[in-house]
Amino acid sequence: MPTTTRVPQEERTRVMRARLLEATIECLVERGFAGTSTTLVSERAGVSRGAQLHHFPTKNDLVVAAVEHLTEKRGVELVAAADALPDGPRHTRAVLDMLADHFTGAVFAAALELWVAARTDASLLAAVEPLEQRIGRETHRLTVELLGLDESMPGNRELAQATLDLVRGLGLADTITDDSRRRAAILDRWADVLDKELG
Amino acid sequence: MPTTTRVPQEERTRVMRARLLEATIECLVERGFAGTSTTLVSERAGVSRGAQLHHFPTKNDLVVAAVEHLTEKRGVELVAAADALPDGPRHTRAVLDMLADHFTGAVFAAALELWVAARTDASLLAAVEPLEQRIGRETHRLTVELLGLDESMPGNRELAQATLDLVRGLGLADTITDDSRRRAAILDRWADVLDKELG
Repeated sequence: MPTTTRVPQEERTRVMRARLLEATIECLVERGFAGTSTTLVSERAGVSRGAQLHHFPTKNDLVVAAVEHLTEKRGVELVAAADALPDGPRHTRAVLDMLADHFTGAVFAAALELWVAARTDASLLAAVEPLEQRIGRETHRLTVELLGLDESMPGNRELAQATLDLVRGLGLADTITDDSRRRAAILDRWADVLDKELG
Repeated sequence: MPTTTRVPQEERTRVMRARLLEATIECLVERGFAGTSTTLVSERAGVSRGAQLHHFPTKNDLVVAAVEHLTEKRGVELVAAADALPDGPRHTRAVLDMLADHFTGAVFAAALELWVAARTDASLLAAVEPLEQRIGRETHRLTVELLGLDESMPGNRELAQATLDLVRGLGLADTITDDSRRRAAILDRWADVLDKELG
């Protein structure tokens, strides 16, 4: 008697949720928050409306879960990529490149759509605010770790924060024009400053 | 015979246009790009639909003109306020405060709505891209002037750009939460760095 290989229900659910969340990010990136709908997402993900509504009853549930899921996934990728960073004089600059990539990719564009929509939508804001705070804390911790920064030294914490605000600003500057050349020159200069200030 | 004081037509037109553009910014700030309509703006400005459509035939005309008009007005205010800046050791920090205020106010929120909407709207993008470039150049020139920065010195241009990207990132961080305490500590640290780097 042949054994039928069955994918366990739990695994199928996990895959379906991931497909829905990836499709949501794609919709946010291509069409913006206003142009994203639960119908479009379920079509794109190839998931039935019923199944989608079971897991994510509203558009807000879907978009918040999508940005959370993809940010966590990108965070794990960042940590993994950190092992490949060069040691020595080029280390700081390489960290800045990693962070800038993080803030100019699709997940940043999707998150930006969400933050901006939340500014004028109280129910979305209630879900986005704690998510933004958690993402902020995790990205800060990651930056401190990547730069090998000693936060007990006065002023170092603020430099890590300034670095993240800088790359966030660079991300915003890149949303409607390709800003890569200007960005590279600014990050060169910023790496010099960080290396000097952090000793 | 009493002389009737009549406001010349040109002046009345100027006042009406300014009212429409101020109302547009208010709408963008309160309701976002998706929630802004030409009907809402004409109601709020107390201007007839016909007059409004005569001056700004489409929503895109209105929102682009509004961000342009208010950015120029804020730029003029910044230049005027620059005269009141303290000389000496507190100068750089005061400049940073001025710039940060510029990037956390209503005009920034309205511009952010416009940039983000333009990301996924080709016809809006065509109007926003040249406006963003002009605003970028003018803000850069103003920053160089306020900081008294010599751009012929290597690396100084990039420091001015980094300063603007930093305050833009701080502006974004402030859109959904009050970030003023964190921002103040970061700007203190950045003023130290700038003073050291610019000699």
